[in-house]
Amino acid sequence: MKNNSLKEIAKVLSEAESVLLFPHLNTDGDAAGSCAALCRALRIMGKDAWILLEDDIPANLLFLDKGYSTADKDKIKEPDICMCIDCGDTGRFPERAEKFLSGKTTICVDHHMTTEYFCDLNFVDSEEAATGQIIFDLLKEMDVMPDAEIGEAIFAAITTDTGDFQYSNTQKKSHLIAAELYDWGVDFNKVSVEIYENVRMEKIMLKNKAMETLRIIGKGRGALLCVSLEMLRATGASMDESEGLAQDLRAISGVEYSAVLKEYEPDVIKVSLRAKREGNVSEIASRLGGGGHLKAAGCTIRASLAEAERMVERELEAAIEELGKNEAKRNI
Amino acid sequence: MKNNSLKEIAKVLSEAESVLLFPHLNTDGDAAGSCAALCRALRIMGKDAWILLEDDIPANLLFLDKGYSTADKDKIKEPDICMCIDCGDTGRFPERAEKFLSGKTTICVDHHMTTEYFCDLNFVDSEEAATGQIIFDLLKEMDVMPDAEIGEAIFAAITTDTGDFQYSNTQKKSHLIAAELYDWGVDFNKVSVEIYENVRMEKIMLKNKAMETLRIIGKGRGALLCVSLEMLRATGASMDESEGLAQDLRAISGVEYSAVLKEYEPDVIKVSLRAKREGNVSEIASRLGGGGHLKAAGCTIRASLAEAERMVERELEAAIEELGKNEAKRNI
Repeated sequence: MKNNSLKEIAKVLSEAESVLLFPHLNTDGDAAGSCAALCRALRIMGKDAWILLEDDIPANLLFLDKGYSTADKDKIKEPDICMCIDCGDTGRFPERAEKFLSGKTTICVDHHMTTEYFCDLNFVDSEEAATGQIIFDLLKEMDVMPDAEIGEAIFAAITTDTGDFQYSNTQKKSHLIAAELYDWGVDFNKVSVEIYENVRMEKIMLKNKAMETLRIIGKGRGALLCVSLEMLRATGASMDESEGLAQDLRAISGVEYSAVLKEYEPDVIKVSLRAKREGNVSEIASRLGGGGHLKAAGCTIRASLAEAERMVERELEAAIEELGKNEAKRNI
Repeated sequence: MKNNSLKEIAKVLSEAESVLLFPHLNTDGDAAGSCAALCRALRIMGKDAWILLEDDIPANLLFLDKGYSTADKDKIKEPDICMCIDCGDTGRFPERAEKFLSGKTTICVDHHMTTEYFCDLNFVDSEEAATGQIIFDLLKEMDVMPDAEIGEAIFAAITTDTGDFQYSNTQKKSHLIAAELYDWGVDFNKVSVEIYENVRMEKIMLKNKAMETLRIIGKGRGALLCVSLEMLRATGASMDESEGLAQDLRAISGVEYSAVLKEYEPDVIKVSLRAKREGNVSEIASRLGGGGHLKAAGCTIRASLAEAERMVERELEAAIEELGKNEAKRNI
């Protein structure tokens, strides 16, 4: 499959009167920022533009929505364009799929590798660190003067998807875009405070409770902990709020593998796996019926939390032993 | 006082045979990265160059020291140049002050506002987000081809001092430098893993213990907690490892003021104060005999931990009430 050019997509957008934007479920900073930036640009151009949602925007991203979002499918009855952003199949917006496909023209802009070219126009580039970077390029092809608000949304998209310019997906381009946004009058620190200094007390209490179950295994090279339904009840937090724990465990000195077991329902345990330098959690995840990347993967285990913990621990111990053997070989 | 040009400083360095570099006590990423980058560059140029230390490099910055550091004052007996980096008075390197002043030429390169021009050559610019940015500029004036290792040290300096490009001191220039470092072959993610994924288990246990004392005050707009000597004993952590807690508390949704009280000795309580958006902790700190910036300040209270906590709580409550009054006024 081949990408359309951003020039073509900009032209189609410029000729439309109404545009409906579709971020994925569980909107993150990249999806929300990309949609907000594009929606504002389209409105400046005089279009009837809206972001259509089927779930809530996380509290720390609400600042991006300056009246752009709606849950009302009839906000635009017969949209000229339906455009999905940061996602590439209707399974990522199931309740809105029918509405999406009713667009006279459909467009997909995304940076996920798994995305299929299912729209009339598609631009998918998995080299891009964030969909926000593609939107930045698209804005340049559009007849619109970008402003601080658009810049703040683009910055939110890029900084969240690159882990504040620390993840390995970060590109030279990510920094060059951030640098250019300074010329648009962006208040970066304001964006950063909104995104990162808006942590619910319930999340902090959940994290504290979960950390009490932290166990170090494999001679200090593995770390795992559990988040139970009971912890959610006790703290009032939601399971989403356990996000980031696997990353925190991997950050422990000497730890090569980390696992966080999340009890979504009794006997439905989702496992987040992380590796630091040498490890490969994609293999572990696939042995447990899941999948993912080398350094970040996951799976779902249908067993009790205690049983799932034993299974994961066994896999981590085996992987750590393997790691030790490989290191010994290299030292011969 | 007037800065010398980086060209002048580069010329003096190029004419020297031996150079001793002086980072400040409690070396941070900016000091360690700046020194490592410059030391390597000087060695590539054939100089006898060393970083002279009087305390340990933190574990997560050790990767920057590829044989550059020494605690031996006689490593260079009569240095042509002694150069202090990321600090601007001998009080920041008290045990090495005499050695520093023995340099045939002394140079100061720094970005702190309080720095005095006390050397033969000085370059101080408080607009710069990190001293690493000044070293980057200095390298351009020097007759040396920068490589990945130098780039990694510069990146370590900039990313730590800008809070991963999130603090308000971050500049367009910070991003432009990071972008240019890509051309030097830097492995950014490797640097990031070294710096941030090297957290001692003791630190994590200390944080968990301290979080148990977290109290929310002032109708949710204030947060404070204590780190006691007893917690250090129980966890084996050092007081340095409580760093970052005031920032974590400020990040709680709704919290405008945060305070962390650290019992360094019985009846010697150091207090870290933070404000989020509207607050001014510099005023609070000065009422308690300390000082600092608008959003980050501190003081030392000579009282028991419990008494200090009552004093700080009173000040926070008063500041929060003041904040409420100002908001009410604005809404009239």
